[in-house]
Amino acid sequence: MIIILKNNTSLEQQNNLIQWIENLGLTVHLSKGKFHTIIGLIGDTSCLDIDLISSLNIVDSVERVMDPFKLSNRKFHPEDTVIQIGNVKIGGGNFCMIAGPCSVETEKQILNIAKVVKNAGANMLRGGAFKPRTSPYDFQGLKETGIELLKIARSETGLPIVSELMNANDLPLFENIDVIQIGARNMQNFDLLREIGKLHKPILLKRGLANTIKELIMSAEYIMAGGNEQVILCERGIRTFSDYTRNTLDLAAIPMLHELSHLPVIVDPSHATGIARLVPPMAYAATACGADGLIIEVHNDPIHAFCDGAQSLKPEQYVELAQKIKQIRNVLQK
Amino acid sequence: MIIILKNNTSLEQQNNLIQWIENLGLTVHLSKGKFHTIIGLIGDTSCLDIDLISSLNIVDSVERVMDPFKLSNRKFHPEDTVIQIGNVKIGGGNFCMIAGPCSVETEKQILNIAKVVKNAGANMLRGGAFKPRTSPYDFQGLKETGIELLKIARSETGLPIVSELMNANDLPLFENIDVIQIGARNMQNFDLLREIGKLHKPILLKRGLANTIKELIMSAEYIMAGGNEQVILCERGIRTFSDYTRNTLDLAAIPMLHELSHLPVIVDPSHATGIARLVPPMAYAATACGADGLIIEVHNDPIHAFCDGAQSLKPEQYVELAQKIKQIRNVLQK
Amino acid sequence: MIIILKNNTSLEQQNNLIQWIENLGLTVHLSKGKFHTIIGLIGDTSCLDIDLISSLNIVDSVERVMDPFKLSNRKFHPEDTVIQIGNVKIGGGNFCMIAGPCSVETEKQILNIAKVVKNAGANMLRGGAFKPRTSPYDFQGLKETGIELLKIARSETGLPIVSELMNANDLPLFENIDVIQIGARNMQNFDLLREIGKLHKPILLKRGLANTIKELIMSAEYIMAGGNEQVILCERGIRTFSDYTRNTLDLAAIPMLHELSHLPVIVDPSHATGIARLVPPMAYAATACGADGLIIEVHNDPIHAFCDGAQSLKPEQYVELAQKIKQIRNVLQK
Amino acid sequence: MIIILKNNTSLEQQNNLIQWIENLGLTVHLSKGKFHTIIGLIGDTSCLDIDLISSLNIVDSVERVMDPFKLSNRKFHPEDTVIQIGNVKIGGGNFCMIAGPCSVETEKQILNIAKVVKNAGANMLRGGAFKPRTSPYDFQGLKETGIELLKIARSETGLPIVSELMNANDLPLFENIDVIQIGARNMQNFDLLREIGKLHKPILLKRGLANTIKELIMSAEYIMAGGNEQVILCERGIRTFSDYTRNTLDLAAIPMLHELSHLPVIVDPSHATGIARLVPPMAYAATACGADGLIIEVHNDPIHAFCDGAQSLKPEQYVELAQKIKQIRNVLQK
Repeated sequence: MIIILKNNTSLEQQNNLIQWIENLGLTVHLSKGKFHTIIGLIGDTSCLDIDLISSLNIVDSVERVMDPFKLSNRKFHPEDTVIQIGNVKIGGGNFCMIAGPCSVETEKQILNIAKVVKNAGANMLRGGAFKPRTSPYDFQGLKETGIELLKIARSETGLPIVSELMNANDLPLFENIDVIQIGARNMQNFDLLREIGKLHKPILLKRGLANTIKELIMSAEYIMAGGNEQVILCERGIRTFSDYTRNTLDLAAIPMLHELSHLPVIVDPSHATGIARLVPPMAYAATACGADGLIIEVHNDPIHAFCDGAQSLKPEQYVELAQKIKQIRNVLQK
Repeated sequence: MIIILKNNTSLEQQNNLIQWIENLGLTVHLSKGKFHTIIGLIGDTSCLDIDLISSLNIVDSVERVMDPFKLSNRKFHPEDTVIQIGNVKIGGGNFCMIAGPCSVETEKQILNIAKVVKNAGANMLRGGAFKPRTSPYDFQGLKETGIELLKIARSETGLPIVSELMNANDLPLFENIDVIQIGARNMQNFDLLREIGKLHKPILLKRGLANTIKELIMSAEYIMAGGNEQVILCERGIRTFSDYTRNTLDLAAIPMLHELSHLPVIVDPSHATGIARLVPPMAYAATACGADGLIIEVHNDPIHAFCDGAQSLKPEQYVELAQKIKQIRNVLQK
Repeated sequence: MIIILKNNTSLEQQNNLIQWIENLGLTVHLSKGKFHTIIGLIGDTSCLDIDLISSLNIVDSVERVMDPFKLSNRKFHPEDTVIQIGNVKIGGGNFCMIAGPCSVETEKQILNIAKVVKNAGANMLRGGAFKPRTSPYDFQGLKETGIELLKIARSETGLPIVSELMNANDLPLFENIDVIQIGARNMQNFDLLREIGKLHKPILLKRGLANTIKELIMSAEYIMAGGNEQVILCERGIRTFSDYTRNTLDLAAIPMLHELSHLPVIVDPSHATGIARLVPPMAYAATACGADGLIIEVHNDPIHAFCDGAQSLKPEQYVELAQKIKQIRNVLQK
Repeated sequence: MIIILKNNTSLEQQNNLIQWIENLGLTVHLSKGKFHTIIGLIGDTSCLDIDLISSLNIVDSVERVMDPFKLSNRKFHPEDTVIQIGNVKIGGGNFCMIAGPCSVETEKQILNIAKVVKNAGANMLRGGAFKPRTSPYDFQGLKETGIELLKIARSETGLPIVSELMNANDLPLFENIDVIQIGARNMQNFDLLREIGKLHKPILLKRGLANTIKELIMSAEYIMAGGNEQVILCERGIRTFSDYTRNTLDLAAIPMLHELSHLPVIVDPSHATGIARLVPPMAYAATACGADGLIIEVHNDPIHAFCDGAQSLKPEQYVELAQKIKQIRNVLQK
């Protein structure tokens, strides 16, 4: 950590600060320039409150030289992490196509969609059993029943299943779920992150609507710090003033996350836009800038879906999308 | 709900839509204008997916005429809700002054600060025992011990205590806590909201960093729908591009929340700005535009605080602030 | 326009409003539902202040049924506009590759870069002669000299030239410039828009950092209302809380703008990200979601560029980018 | 400026960078820590492109130690600037109350409102003659006639007048206007800023909707660099995701601007909220956190106003507001 002092700092003030830092067990390296004095801190500065030091009236600015994340940091783990779920791999050049309905509704519905998306090229099935809804009066998911129906769909199609966990108390129900999804609203539910950090199971971690990509990585770090290193990051749009789409899909986050971390990064164009006809162009764009996979809502009957029908593709639209995605990937790999 | 059809909608398409709506048990009122046809829906439209209808290619736009919130809605409850905690009242002209450290650290610290803020005019004590931290490597709070220390401070000073709950499994520890705080990151942790909706205890609900004020009210509605109508709303800054303060304090939310809901609204200028010297001006501003209270971080030794020292006032600064707040309230009540 | 009245509106209040509207020369169509009364307005409502009507205490909400833009509206002009500049076409399936330095610096520099980008596949040359800079102490461009050097580069390479106009008084200097660029900061400089609306010359109109896509279209409408219908829209990133890139590139705006307007839409990944190594992935993404062209900064010597060197590609990087763009376009056209 | 190098930088790379810096006429101060090497730059670094240096692959981060603004910087001018317009003073403890209609409409209207606001305690009159409107089809102001009517109102009431300039070519018309307003959309119209920098007349500079407070100060610096040091800064709301008000009023900007600059800072609650009933609470809040004045829209007949009627106060509402403002100021000055 580097502390840059203000010009008018007295020697006494400077020494007080240095002594305080040394009392914390850190070593100090002082550098006096013509216009400014810099204090370099050597040792484990993770215990220091950077905001507090910035607020001291003798301090001009503070810069943390080392990233606050370690396990998820590409600097210390240069190769891509590859996560394997059954036969499916994600990351390191492996692309995953996750598809399915927003909510599991009936056995017929989930079986029907599972078969359709499998034929279209999906290699994993998504479906919500526990649904986070803004209103307490909206449909909240089939819960246990939904989980059971997903398992039936898996045994019929062989597709691994992804479903959202909202509450660590429901973990016993998720024992046979292949990938646990943590939704955007729970990205900083740190107690939940800690619990899933104890599992040996891939986690699909969605970026919160107001979270920086550094915060997304820090939330992955929470899970990894518990021992579970199988984290898939997911960009799904952020909140901005722009109001034509539900959220603003921040695609530059994909190459940036790849630079900072070795974890795979996928994109959810369905929730990001909220509009079915924008899903294909945004899926192509996400693929073109290097995503490791896509999670897309597909419904055989969007107009009668229990929720989020507006953003669901029909099966035939997904078939076309899957073909173009393959072609774009071919271009990139040349 | 009002559906406005596009001009080029055929009679057949229009009839299909009407039939589909009627199948949902709703009554339709058709109004043909010169330039547009409007379908008015009568009945309980809460089951309808407004985004789905908007996405139909014959629909120009859809407008929900009735608010999706009921229990928290001022239309159905015109008088201010007044929440009583011991001798302290909040709302309906009663102002509360909540103060204390970010984290409970030691018995000496919390007792010291509790006495100081009481003398300065605070009528409730805050202190974090469970701390949501962005990094898994940061101090996470004293947990059970912190809760016990808060109780000691209460029995010494008589101040009711406020502390943050992050996990419903910790509820037994909070049985004797006077007000349970739900932090910004958990504003849409719907399972947690449902659990505290079963309590008979005031809840301090903070607005999430990317949440609209309607979403804040909907989260209060979750708690109230469970039977717990004692909800205090709290504005604490939103995420914007503006980077001089940690967040942007959205003070216009105060009169707006008062207009939409009967619940009391308080403001947290400490977390909103992250800078101690901006806390007094923002506290004055919040009071001047009608807040029902303030929650402010005070620490006897900010430079040695375990967290958020940068935004804590010293006791003497809080004394001065409390006096000015009283004077501003006098002006408003004239 | 549709006005939805509140339930408790008296007949007298309702009649007053209707009379006021009719006095403005509009016809009213009244529709009384069980729960709400709707007033449909027939006639030219463009003179009405929608915010004012919304603010009346008897009004629940107001909805403008017709778009406020006409000339730029795809509804009234279903085919893509194709803009021709010399041999180059933009829109309607024609893709343009605009490249060049942020600023024109010397004759050698601009000639060198012009030849390089032409060989790499660019079909238009960009270069700033008048530079909008946040600081009055920064380099402000070569001005007249810069324009002259661009013309020399054009005559040497045959590439049409694009350059930014900041002040209508400089228009005589731009007489021989092929495409006039209006920068993000001037997107709502309405006097400037009016002036260029009088020209017979293509305009490249960049989206402002805080502007909605509807406002971008309205600014195009300003230019078109003056008689100049050759407007190219350009997405170049918006301001959000996300701080890893200079701005957040809003790629969903591309398919959305294509839906609302018939004007061509191009993307500037250089200014959107501010980071050279993010330019290729974002250029691929923009192409994949349907952009009609790209404007990219290329510099033979980024480290010595007068400005924005951090976001400039080297010529060899541009060559590679141009090849991949062609391949992605082939995939999309299949 | 401080450059922090990455750990794996070779001595050769380091020397190349140092040589390049020294070739620019700067002196280098090298400091090698255990974990990082820091290069301190001494001399005039304003010519350096901080983004470019950041982008070098051997550079971890760069920090500019000195502010890029000088004339507007409180560090070099510790006392408040006081701007005098006739008998009215702004700044340094002097509060100004600017009021009037959004647009000048008729002689009767402007005279009527001018008298009313004067009686209510306003000491300056605002009124738009040139109006920036999003749509080319909206009312654009009375222009020359509007300016003439303002002068009549001034001679009748003695109130100095404020009006918005959109185009430097209109400056001759503004010769007798007391304060020239630069609107939010023109905050970074640098050519316009340069032109008004040549005047000897106070400028009211509004913050742009997507501009940081540092950018606002830099735009003031443009004006001051031309020789005109009479700049009044104005906070009027920024664009955020929050959609209940037209913009989000960023009141923490007031104490922050006062800290960074010696220029007076006023607030426009009318445009910030767009809702008349939110203007009084936001005006009180702005006063309470230290604003040097308020600019507020008042209209005798808001429902018939040509524009922005929704946000205009009626005269009697302004009277009440002005009284409370005085009382709040009394509290603050104690």
